[in-house]
Amino acid sequence: MVWNTNLRWRLPVTCLLLQVALVVLFGVFVRYDSDADPHWTNKKMQENFTSDLENEFYYRYPSFQDVHVMIFVGFGFLMTFLQRYGYSSVGFNFLLAAFGIQWALLMQGWFHSYYQGYIHVGVENLINADFCVGSVCVAFGAVLGKVSPVQLLIMTLFQVTLFSVNEYILLSLLEVKDAGGSMTIHTFGAYFGLTVTWILYRPSLQQSKERQSAVYHSDLFAMIGTLFLWMYWPSFNSAVSNHGDAQHRAAINTYCSLAACVLTSVALSSALHKKGKLDMVHIQNATLAGGVAVGTAAEMMLMPYGSLIVGFICGIVSTLGFVYLTPFLEAQLRIQDTCGIHNLHGIPGIIGAIVGAVTASCATSDVYGVNGVAVAFGFDGSKTNWNASMQGKFQAAGLFVSLAMALVGGIIVGIILKLPFWGQPADENCFEDSVYWEVSSRALFPCTKGTLPTSAELGPPRDRKLRVGGQSLHHPAPPSRGCVSLGG
Amino acid sequence: MVWNTNLRWRLPVTCLLLQVALVVLFGVFVRYDSDADPHWTNKKMQENFTSDLENEFYYRYPSFQDVHVMIFVGFGFLMTFLQRYGYSSVGFNFLLAAFGIQWALLMQGWFHSYYQGYIHVGVENLINADFCVGSVCVAFGAVLGKVSPVQLLIMTLFQVTLFSVNEYILLSLLEVKDAGGSMTIHTFGAYFGLTVTWILYRPSLQQSKERQSAVYHSDLFAMIGTLFLWMYWPSFNSAVSNHGDAQHRAAINTYCSLAACVLTSVALSSALHKKGKLDMVHIQNATLAGGVAVGTAAEMMLMPYGSLIVGFICGIVSTLGFVYLTPFLEAQLRIQDTCGIHNLHGIPGIIGAIVGAVTASCATSDVYGVNGVAVAFGFDGSKTNWNASMQGKFQAAGLFVSLAMALVGGIIVGIILKLPFWGQPADENCFEDSVYWEVSSRALFPCTKGTLPTSAELGPPRDRKLRVGGQSLHHPAPPSRGCVSLGG
Amino acid sequence: MVWNTNLRWRLPVTCLLLQVALVVLFGVFVRYDSDADPHWTNKKMQENFTSDLENEFYYRYPSFQDVHVMIFVGFGFLMTFLQRYGYSSVGFNFLLAAFGIQWALLMQGWFHSYYQGYIHVGVENLINADFCVGSVCVAFGAVLGKVSPVQLLIMTLFQVTLFSVNEYILLSLLEVKDAGGSMTIHTFGAYFGLTVTWILYRPSLQQSKERQSAVYHSDLFAMIGTLFLWMYWPSFNSAVSNHGDAQHRAAINTYCSLAACVLTSVALSSALHKKGKLDMVHIQNATLAGGVAVGTAAEMMLMPYGSLIVGFICGIVSTLGFVYLTPFLEAQLRIQDTCGIHNLHGIPGIIGAIVGAVTASCATSDVYGVNGVAVAFGFDGSKTNWNASMQGKFQAAGLFVSLAMALVGGIIVGIILKLPFWGQPADENCFEDSVYWEVSSRALFPCTKGTLPTSAELGPPRDRKLRVGGQSLHHPAPPSRGCVSLGG
Repeated sequence: MVWNTNLRWRLPVTCLLLQVALVVLFGVFVRYDSDADPHWTNKKMQENFTSDLENEFYYRYPSFQDVHVMIFVGFGFLMTFLQRYGYSSVGFNFLLAAFGIQWALLMQGWFHSYYQGYIHVGVENLINADFCVGSVCVAFGAVLGKVSPVQLLIMTLFQVTLFSVNEYILLSLLEVKDAGGSMTIHTFGAYFGLTVTWILYRPSLQQSKERQSAVYHSDLFAMIGTLFLWMYWPSFNSAVSNHGDAQHRAAINTYCSLAACVLTSVALSSALHKKGKLDMVHIQNATLAGGVAVGTAAEMMLMPYGSLIVGFICGIVSTLGFVYLTPFLEAQLRIQDTCGIHNLHGIPGIIGAIVGAVTASCATSDVYGVNGVAVAFGFDGSKTNWNASMQGKFQAAGLFVSLAMALVGGIIVGIILKLPFWGQPADENCFEDSVYWEVSSRALFPCTKGTLPTSAELGPPRDRKLRVGGQSLHHPAPPSRGCVSLGG
Repeated sequence: MVWNTNLRWRLPVTCLLLQVALVVLFGVFVRYDSDADPHWTNKKMQENFTSDLENEFYYRYPSFQDVHVMIFVGFGFLMTFLQRYGYSSVGFNFLLAAFGIQWALLMQGWFHSYYQGYIHVGVENLINADFCVGSVCVAFGAVLGKVSPVQLLIMTLFQVTLFSVNEYILLSLLEVKDAGGSMTIHTFGAYFGLTVTWILYRPSLQQSKERQSAVYHSDLFAMIGTLFLWMYWPSFNSAVSNHGDAQHRAAINTYCSLAACVLTSVALSSALHKKGKLDMVHIQNATLAGGVAVGTAAEMMLMPYGSLIVGFICGIVSTLGFVYLTPFLEAQLRIQDTCGIHNLHGIPGIIGAIVGAVTASCATSDVYGVNGVAVAFGFDGSKTNWNASMQGKFQAAGLFVSLAMALVGGIIVGIILKLPFWGQPADENCFEDSVYWEVSSRALFPCTKGTLPTSAELGPPRDRKLRVGGQSLHHPAPPSRGCVSLGG
Repeated sequence: MVWNTNLRWRLPVTCLLLQVALVVLFGVFVRYDSDADPHWTNKKMQENFTSDLENEFYYRYPSFQDVHVMIFVGFGFLMTFLQRYGYSSVGFNFLLAAFGIQWALLMQGWFHSYYQGYIHVGVENLINADFCVGSVCVAFGAVLGKVSPVQLLIMTLFQVTLFSVNEYILLSLLEVKDAGGSMTIHTFGAYFGLTVTWILYRPSLQQSKERQSAVYHSDLFAMIGTLFLWMYWPSFNSAVSNHGDAQHRAAINTYCSLAACVLTSVALSSALHKKGKLDMVHIQNATLAGGVAVGTAAEMMLMPYGSLIVGFICGIVSTLGFVYLTPFLEAQLRIQDTCGIHNLHGIPGIIGAIVGAVTASCATSDVYGVNGVAVAFGFDGSKTNWNASMQGKFQAAGLFVSLAMALVGGIIVGIILKLPFWGQPADENCFEDSVYWEVSSRALFPCTKGTLPTSAELGPPRDRKLRVGGQSLHHPAPPSRGCVSLGG
């Protein structure tokens, strides 16, 4: 089936309409919160702050910037491993995230920062908007290469909305703890994305199979994404934790879990190859599973060795997933998961939710100190009669709500995206930048540009071939001055 | 016309002379400021600081590091899009910035941090030096590929000097607000660079036209630059704002403006292509215009929706500029703007100055609180009788001063750079690394190294060529062991 | 000599054993320190802290993240310059660092953070663990391309142990100052690595000479590493300095030294080339020597001009080292130093130690203020009778201890690594990813796969294998559709 992939009107109109709507909604609803407003001076006096440093900005801004790098460079470059889809990986991720953070500021704002008729935004809102978009980036990994940018904007619109509802249910109604978003971001994002790609199943995708692999340098670009995700994950999991020891502890736990995860990912990657060779796919992805899986418990008293154990398990599970589960999902369940998000975000997200529930239910005043449990889990106001065990149960409930929201939401959004007029590519054109990007044919051939003919240019192919040793081959084009050394 | 591009004595002598002069001047003039000196202990007592955190270092250092990344990785990699000029883009940017920050510490120091016979430097000076060099990096974008490193050092020497004078006039004499440097950095840098490239006009530049485009991976390298600029721009615009709400607000406004700018850049990029395809040039550049254009107003009460509107407009204007204005400037005004800095820094810089002037002149105590306007705009000391409207007029005056300095300075510096002995490349050798860098001919052909012969290696060329359709061409060389898989 | 490079059991078993041991040791020994534990609330009250900001986390976390980037992206990508060793450079660096930081948390913890039966970890421990691993990354540069990942893990195990002992002797017994680790990290790491590579000397290494050079894009990847190291080095040298002015000063000194170093590296690189061309090797490495050489003195009153002088000298010395010393070491002393760490870490480390000793011995109360010297150098407790001159002598002693530890340790570890069963590559397979990584033969030929024929394709294609020098090897597959543009 052939769709029209010319987006000349659809993409501009979608972008402009969305952005105009955002401007209007921001105009009506969004104001600065008291830490970002000149009223800060009054607040400082009222609250007896001795220093401008008490402004939330100084507690959170460095973490915000790290999270920001993870969303745009981390996720963007992680997906550049595809040999012919680098522009789209980075570029579409950029587009959907730029739209998503604005829409998330509104959606999350209405749920969490709305009072006196306005949404009040500060640095914590920026972090949460980035988090919300992180969940969209996860889902993007499942449909990577198979959807148009218009579809991605539609998906982002709906997913951010659903994310915010789910987050509200978990954080405000169930009063679940989920600092690093194992449930709200990773589990929700992964199963939402997997459901969407299941609905969008393409039976003839093998037609573009050859472009689903990496080339040498595309794998190095992807490692930029991997490493920035890996390095800054401690900031991700600690960015919105309580000031002081909780934020500190969340960073330490994440650091430990991620370190352990690298060793077990490498171990399994080698053990599962018949000649013991490592696979870049595992190094790029499974090494990150440890960060996902301490998302919920990072700020709790998981203990450093607890973090190591979580990372240890996740490196193994995630690598096994890449080797055995992803092919099974594709062959048996018709789930085509381009980036293997099920292994990096799905299973580790569920593990993280479970670890969080268990850790919460084991909280004691021996470990947290007198009142410590109440402080850590917010047992005050409506929750004064709660205890650790109840918290654990609610944590578990949060996981099921997230899964249900992801599945139901994913089916609905998948059906919407299946409509034939969003400019999606044909099966044989998937994973191919030149469908949506101006890619000079030269672009691929440094210094032989214009020489290796494209099919379009080829016309009758024979006269562009030559014989070498009796064998025909394409050949580089006439020398271009720029290609030869100018002489040393 | 052929120049001698052998820099063996010119470049080393220039570098060493400049560096020796800097050492001497630093020895005579530069000392640590009180926050970076053991006298900090006394200051803490005198000012009743309860904590070392009151040291300016903790307010500004995270922002400083972000700005530092923008200057060296952001600008450096943004310019690597050229297929054969990656070494020079990153390397010369590195060189000029490393020189520029030292010279800027002195120049800005004499104007702003000079007392008791010494320049006193602290973290804010480091940020301002980076800012100053940012303006040189902007101008570098206009002359990229057409100048020698010696010319760049000369240009940096003069531009930093002029920048500091202009900055002094704006900030100290006109008492203009320009936290993110829409006027001082972007407008000044862009029009200075455009004037220089206008003076250095090369009528036969089409001789190296083939190297003025990108190749696939060079575009991905450039996206690294784009994204680090985009992500850290909130730090750029807030780095030297007042402590507390001003710094906080500057980050939020910049975040909003940049996000909106991405959507309208994508919209226009697609709408202006006959098949609706996106162009990497726009994604790499126009998406950043929103950061430039809130430079002046970022710390003011621009409001989140105001930021979105600024970003909205700049994405459109900047993309239109790349499509229509740059070719016009080159064809009609003989301004060869390699990176399109007019669209990314020039026009958005002017827009930013106007937005700043309007926002300042609209400041009221309703919005800023009692005394808020005076605090925000520094209406004290000599400015006690100022009001918002006057501030707005001075802001506007600042724009014209910056433009005038850029044009006059650019003409003078352009004429100096036109002198024939700086080692500039011939027209047919522009945009070519191998003029100034040791580039192995192999360097371009992974694994076919040594095979595509360079002119130098060719020797008697005939036996290394073969004929195809009557046309001679170089051909891949004999197999090299290193190139084939070692077997799994 | 041919070794078995199939790591299928050796690598997984090594990784899993080490990680299990770490889990057990963490379980027995590692707990959170008081700033990362719920007891923070008590500590805050006891110490009369008015704010959570007094938590060590807020003083050190931004610096920690910068150091983290240096270790994983900085060192990892710096080594990707080799054309066929990018996966291994980034991937093995990732592996050894992930293991090393865990082991370093234990080793350093036992020496410095052990009380009440537990090691108490906080953000400063994380930074120190990264520092320790930095020294392993340095040594990795010497053996790059010639060892197996199993050897690297063994080396890391021993080197972290030795590092911790050496660090304990220097910091706790000799009470030496070494904030940025000129002695403990760079000198120790470099001479340890050089000794190991000397023991592992490969007389027939020229067999893989062709892969020891860079290709165009691999040099750009390496520049990512260089720039992140360069930009974040001020954080490296200031990360564990005393709060307040010392940390502030360390950042300023490093910034200055690095800037000066760039200019003299460029000057020498050009002056030493017969046509005045620059060499990427020097720009990638020598520009960083200034950061190494202010490591010890960065937090002292070195003065900005003092830092410039240090950087000035190191740029020259380091570039000279690359041009003259490295070839000499290889030819005469049989030291094969792949990355030239002797020039980047060895000599500059020694210079840094000397600069530190001299600066310390010149400390006066004129410069540091009354009590300032005692505060800066910790002349209290057991050192009350010390003076600056004694401190200088102990600093010098620290250098000799580090050198001795490196040489003796390097010999022992080198001999262990020489055992024939660690899966090391044969001489002709050094610097080659495909020994340890699954590398698709296509991976090397983006879209020219099958088109620009490799030697391999030229023969009879049908059996997919061919013979070169009597040896069969896989070859790139037949041309694939994916290579040609899909047309607009």
